[in-house]
Order: sequence, then C-alpha cells, then structure tokens
Amino acid sequence: MEMRHQTLLSLLLISTLPALGQEEHPGNTDASFIKQIHDVTLTQGQSYTWLHYLSKEIGARLSGSPQAAAAVEYTRQVLNTLELDSVWLMPCMVPHWVRGEKEIVRITQSVMGPVELNALALGNSTGTGAEGIWAPVVEVKSLDEVEQLGEAAVKGRIVFFNRPFDPTLLNTFAAYGTAVDQRTAGPSVAAKYGAVGVVVRSMASGLDDVPHTGSLSYKEGLPQIPAVAISTNDAELLSRLLRQGPVTIFMRTTCEMLPDKLSYNVIGEIKGTEKPEEIILVGGHLDTWDVCEGAHDDGAGTVQSMEVLQILRLLNYNPKRTIRCVLFMNEENGLRGGRTYAEEAKRKGEMHLAAIESDRGGFTPKGFTVEATEEVFNKKFPVTQNWRSLFEPFNLRIRKGGGGADISPLKSHGTLLFGYEPDSQRYFDYHHSPADTFEKVNKRELQLGTAAMASLVYLLDKYGLEEN
Amino acid sequence: MEMRHQTLLSLLLISTLPALGQEEHPGNTDASFIKQIHDVTLTQGQSYTWLHYLSKEIGARLSGSPQAAAAVEYTRQVLNTLELDSVWLMPCMVPHWVRGEKEIVRITQSVMGPVELNALALGNSTGTGAEGIWAPVVEVKSLDEVEQLGEAAVKGRIVFFNRPFDPTLLNTFAAYGTAVDQRTAGPSVAAKYGAVGVVVRSMASGLDDVPHTGSLSYKEGLPQIPAVAISTNDAELLSRLLRQGPVTIFMRTTCEMLPDKLSYNVIGEIKGTEKPEEIILVGGHLDTWDVCEGAHDDGAGTVQSMEVLQILRLLNYNPKRTIRCVLFMNEENGLRGGRTYAEEAKRKGEMHLAAIESDRGGFTPKGFTVEATEEVFNKKFPVTQNWRSLFEPFNLRIRKGGGGADISPLKSHGTLLFGYEPDSQRYFDYHHSPADTFEKVNKRELQLGTAAMASLVYLLDKYGLEEN
Repeated sequence: MEMRHQTLLSLLLISTLPALGQEEHPGNTDASFIKQIHDVTLTQGQSYTWLHYLSKEIGARLSGSPQAAAAVEYTRQVLNTLELDSVWLMPCMVPHWVRGEKEIVRITQSVMGPVELNALALGNSTGTGAEGIWAPVVEVKSLDEVEQLGEAAVKGRIVFFNRPFDPTLLNTFAAYGTAVDQRTAGPSVAAKYGAVGVVVRSMASGLDDVPHTGSLSYKEGLPQIPAVAISTNDAELLSRLLRQGPVTIFMRTTCEMLPDKLSYNVIGEIKGTEKPEEIILVGGHLDTWDVCEGAHDDGAGTVQSMEVLQILRLLNYNPKRTIRCVLFMNEENGLRGGRTYAEEAKRKGEMHLAAIESDRGGFTPKGFTVEATEEVFNKKFPVTQNWRSLFEPFNLRIRKGGGGADISPLKSHGTLLFGYEPDSQRYFDYHHSPADTFEKVNKRELQLGTAAMASLVYLLDKYGLEEN
Repeated sequence: MEMRHQTLLSLLLISTLPALGQEEHPGNTDASFIKQIHDVTLTQGQSYTWLHYLSKEIGARLSGSPQAAAAVEYTRQVLNTLELDSVWLMPCMVPHWVRGEKEIVRITQSVMGPVELNALALGNSTGTGAEGIWAPVVEVKSLDEVEQLGEAAVKGRIVFFNRPFDPTLLNTFAAYGTAVDQRTAGPSVAAKYGAVGVVVRSMASGLDDVPHTGSLSYKEGLPQIPAVAISTNDAELLSRLLRQGPVTIFMRTTCEMLPDKLSYNVIGEIKGTEKPEEIILVGGHLDTWDVCEGAHDDGAGTVQSMEVLQILRLLNYNPKRTIRCVLFMNEENGLRGGRTYAEEAKRKGEMHLAAIESDRGGFTPKGFTVEATEEVFNKKFPVTQNWRSLFEPFNLRIRKGGGGADISPLKSHGTLLFGYEPDSQRYFDYHHSPADTFEKVNKRELQLGTAAMASLVYLLDKYGLEEN
C-alpha cells in the first residue's frame, strides 16, 4: 500500500481497508472493495460541492464562452488537488455560437389573436436578422411529411415540427431518439422545399412551458434557415390553433456563428503500475447550453469522472492500468473535443482498453450500456458479464447499448465503450433548458453514480477484458 | 369482454386489445397484457391530476382535520367516476392532534449567543404550555446513552438526540429504520430520567434547513414531555456549540391532543367473477402530516391505488377475484384505519389473498417487498418468483421485505403482504416536512408505479398464490 495518500484517509477507513494485493479471502475481496468504494463515496465524496461550483458560480458554459474557459480552469484546479500523476490541457478549436438578444416568437394571426410563445433558438442556428421574419405556418409530424407536402405547401412558410415523444417507451432516451431528427435535420429538410423558418416542439417528456434548445445540423448545399424550439405546452396550443384556421408567426433571433475559438479538453490520470500503456478512460463533458446551469447535462458526468479518481486515491488503490479522467469540450454543438481526443490518441499510438462516459444525468444508477465494433463486442462484452454477481447488490447491470458521444470516436480504435446509465424518467424534463439546475440533482444519486463508475473502473483494471 | 366500459376505451386500445380469455398465444398473453397496462397508464392515467388536487386544492390532511374530511370526500367522488361495483366509507375513530401556534425553539445561551432553530413539534407531542420551557441541553446519540447517563446528567434538562442516518446504507428506509427510535421512543426514555423536553435531529438523509416531523409514542406510566424535531443543519450547529460550552434552549409549543373524531377509510371494489370471496387489496393512506402537501407521503399511494382500478377498467379486464382499493385514514399518528379495516375483515370473515400498499413515495419503481407469517411466506412467496421474467423487462423484482403499516394487521389473517418499492434516494429529503410538495413528484415515475401495481394485481388475480 502506497503511503503518500494516507493522510487523506479517515481513521475509520484505515481500520477497514483490505490488504490489497494479499487477497487472503479472494472470493470476498472484490465484493468488499466495491462496498468500500460505495461507503467512501457516500461519506467523503466531493462531487456535489464541485457541481455546486460549476452550476452556480460558473453557470452556463457553452463552447467559446468565458464560462467554458472558467470551467476548464476550475476542473484543472480540482484535478490538481487530487494528487494525480499528471494533469494537462489538450487544445482543440471549437465552434463559437452566440444566442444574441432574447428571441421573439409570436403568433401574430390566429383565431385567438396574437400569442407570445416560450421559445429558444436552436443551437448553431442562423438568426432571422434584426427585422425578423413573418410567415404562415404549416404543421408536420415528420421529415417524411415535409417531403410529401413538397414545395407547394412549404415554400415561403414556417414549418412546425410537432411529433411528441412516445410516452410508452419506458426509457426516455429511446423516446428522444425517435423524435430528435425533427430538431437536427428538420431545418434543412424544410429549407429544401423553400421554407423560411422552422419551429420545433421541444424535445421533452412532458407538458410544460419550458423551451428546450439543442443543436441543429445544416446540410451542405441547402439554404440555412433560422430555427427555434417552443415549449411543449405552446406546441399543443399552436397545433390547436392551426386546426381552427390559418396561423402566422413572427420570429426574431439574432444568433450567429462566430469564428472558431481555442479551447481545451481537461485531463488527469493515475499511471498504471503494471500495464501503464493500457488506458481506462472515464469522462463527461464540460460544455453546456447557454441557457442553463447544466447540472445534469453534463455537470454530473464531469464531477463524477473527477470523483472516480478521488475515490481510488482515498482508498489507496494503485491501478495496474492507467486510469484517465477526460473532461471533453464541445459535446453539445460540435464534438470537437471528442474528435480531437481520438485523433491525438491515434497519433500517439495510445491503447484505450475501455472508455466510460457519464452523460445521461446524475440520477439513481441502473448500470452501464456497452457498445463496440462487432468483433470487439463479441469478444469482450462477455467478460463484463462475469461481474454480474458483484453488481447485483447495487442494482447495477451491464447490457448492450450506446456508449456516449464524446467517446464514440474511440470505437474504431477497438475500445469497449460504456455509457453510464442512470434512471431516465426525469432527464428530459430538464435537458437543454433553464430547468437544468443544481437543485434538480440529488446528492446521494450523484454519488451512487460515481461509486458505480469507480467499481467498474476497478474491475476493468483488475481483470482487463480478455477471457481467461 | 364485458361491453359497458367500452366507451372508456380509445380507438387505439380497441385495436390492440388481446382477446382475453381466448389466449390463442398463451405464452405471450401475460407479457403483452402487462405491456398494455403500462401503455394505458402512461397515456391515459389520471393519477397525476388527482394528486394535484389532493396536494394543491386540499393540501395537508392530518387525521381529524377538515382537510382529512375533504380528502375522504374527494377520493370517494373519484372512485365513483370509475364505474366500480361498489364504493363505500368505513367509519373509524381517529386521534385529533393539533399543532397550535408556530413552535419556537431557540438557543438562548451558547458561545455564539442566541440562535433561532428550524423546528417542528413531533406529532402526538404534548405542548410546553404558553410560557414555554428553558433548560440546559445534553446531547446523546442513542436511547442507550440516556440510560447510561441516568438521572444525574438528564434530570431537568432537554435531551438532544443526534444520531444521523447511516449514509452507507443504500436504501434510505434502512437508514431511517436505524435512526427513528430516537423520535418514537426518545421522549419517554428521556422522561424516565427526569428530562423536561426533547429535541430530535430530523429524520432526513441530507443536510438542510428543513425540519421533519413524525409521531412519537409515549410509554404508559411515564411523564409526557414535549418534543420537537430540528433541521439537520441546526442539529449539526447545536452539536458544534455543545462541544464549545453549555447551551440552553427555550422551547414553546402549544400542540395538544383533542378528543377522538369520526373519520373513514374510503373503499372501492370490482367484484370477482369466479372467486369473489378472494380479495386482492391495493391501498395507500389518505392522511398526511399537517405541515405538508403530502404528495409523496402518501398522496402518491392514494392516487396510484385508485388508478389501478381505473386501468383495469380501461382495459376491460374483468377479474376472477375481487379487486379492492382501500384508502386508509390515520396511518401517520395512530393506524386506526388499518386496525379498523382488519377488525372488520375478521368480523365479516373476509379472505384477503394479498394486500399491496404503496407508501414509500411516487418514485421510479424497483418492485415489491413481501412479508407474511412464516408459514404463509414459505408457501406463497415462491409463486411470485414464477413471474420474474414478466417483471424483468420493466426492471421490477419481488423480494423479501416489509409490506406496509396499514396492511400490517392483515398479516395474522394469512394474507401475503406486498410493499410497493420505488427508488428510495430522495424520499427522506421530503418525508414529513414542508418539502413534500406536488412539484417533487414526476408524472411518469408516478404512473410507472401504478403500472407495476396493476401488473401485480393482474398476475395475482389470474394465477392466485397456490403452486400448481
């Protein structure tokens, strides 16, 4: 047991620490160490305090913003307190989109007269110009419907995408997955047929007055038209009004894309003692949308990833493999941090055994979803199933599913990608909206997520991913 | 398929309903029916609307209060809309405790001078009298410590019980279970050695300024002394001040126990078609503490229990056995509703095959915990494990554990008791405090609880609890 971190340990912990490496009771060591990971996280974890700082002192931190720079500096400072082997910044150029003045989206003509709507410009959207735009509205439920309607119904209009989440899908990420094409691809599909603007129903599970932003992706070669999201209540209202007669909307947004800016991924690592060349990555993303504290998305993943290293240090755990915390920049509107990271890894010939991303909120853990290339998945996923009995007491399971946006470029490197999976029911009440605040995070739920991630890191480090 | 409820069905549902009773694909019928229960609850459930009324229009509804009477009338009216076979009120006499004026709990002497504390009188506590009481404080961590200190240290003092929840217990109900004796039994143990009052650290998972009330239980033959709960932050402060010097507290509470009042359990049932004499009960409790909306405790259980019957009706399900929704009165400070119900059941010779109680909040479902007499448990619990594969897609499990306070008197009747088990992490942030508001309940989490309960009711009804 290395002694330099001894001072961090409470007396209680010293007395209950197993003699790692001796394994006098091998059958029990893993279970008791995982229990200790949970105990230490729940009693000494710092993630909630760090999250408070990120959410309340720094706040919204979209790529290119001063607060994004503050988040880089803050997390570097935190990592520097954890007695890691190294902490560094990895430069990357990021898009710099700014919202400009508060957007105006107003029904100007309808059977009930004018109505102000709760709206947010979509991220990466172009603005309407200072004069704004007026146009009649046509409602659709899908991209296909725009194609079917064609120019006759779409040209010169504002297209209103209004397909709600499917409430019968138990996992709200599945519901998001079936609706989000309207936001990402809708504007270009509408532009293809001459639309002048797009209004999208917010990507949200329920009905309320909160608009949810998120990025759109303009298709090359098509006009870039302005697009906004309106609250789900307003989407219901707009749809009702359209059933009763023509509706005209006025939109005014002054958002714009500025030149790229220099920013950074923030990285800290504990070097492996036996196989330092094999890297186990744990990470989240630093940037958030500009209208929220980003406590769940992805303040939670950011602080949990740092806390995983803290917990391993508190437990005096010296990993065989290299454990690296990576806090990615620009997940929300470009993925430049994740792409840059994978390019650098390739350039340096780094070998990432596994990568764990936490980017689904800081709720009660359910486990992990795993993805990889087919060959890697078939070979390595079964190894994770050997750990089932160790995870069961904590109600955790490892199943097939998505990894995470930031780590996705590592898939082609042969890395096994783990997406940390918390309970999903509340996530899309807050996601990309002003409702994503620190108060929505429960301290214990956040910490239990860290403990789940640290437990997985421990098992990956100890056993690797080769079937014996 | 009985037709009288046909009008309640959406066209969608009609087209996807299985032909119940025909079972052309027997292997698939249960799974698809349970999926339909979930779909209908998530798309047509009314529990969230009912909960809004209970929480916001009626509000706090302690036994004996006008609002408790309103809750009886409201839920009777709701049940009357569900086209049940019968709806009735079961009279029971309940304790009528009132809080009186806002309590004052103030540190009058300490190293930092006077400090006002966030406090609530414990339920069923006697008041201090209008003059209040002053006394020096002695801190303890357990009932045993009071016994060890004895009269010399306790007489004439206010005893401060300050053992926190154990944060390393994953289920917060387990942590509550290890701490709550201080609140329930502390006052009488302190009185035994001459204490004049009791201050209890709030039964809560975290640190904040919110005091949590809850009932105490005076032991016969001992003086009844006034007792209050203070917030966990204030408990930390008080403990810190006590380490630095003597502390004197002034307490003033004018709470009192008035004569018993007439109240009711509210009951609605669907009569069984084949075995009407076998009853499957599903219930929660109507009463709440007087300082909160009682949205999680137990507005959630109340509306979920009603919704189970609604969902069975919407699906045109005609049970073989009798399905009975029981909304109990006075769980919080007397359990008179639960006791009266069991006595009446015995008097009438009713046979309760199973009873399901929802009284752990309206959070994401985890499953059910089961208790019974040893003989009944050993015989019937294994039958529930046959349904594992049906519950797994919904992340539900049935395991050994507590049933619920209101249904506990049915244990000796040979009934298998099921406690609905949602995620526990947030419950004790709100429990018995002003923080237990409607806003803390997520609509989908609430509905998923109903669906879990309705699915269990369906399986209990279809298969009973005899091993084939």
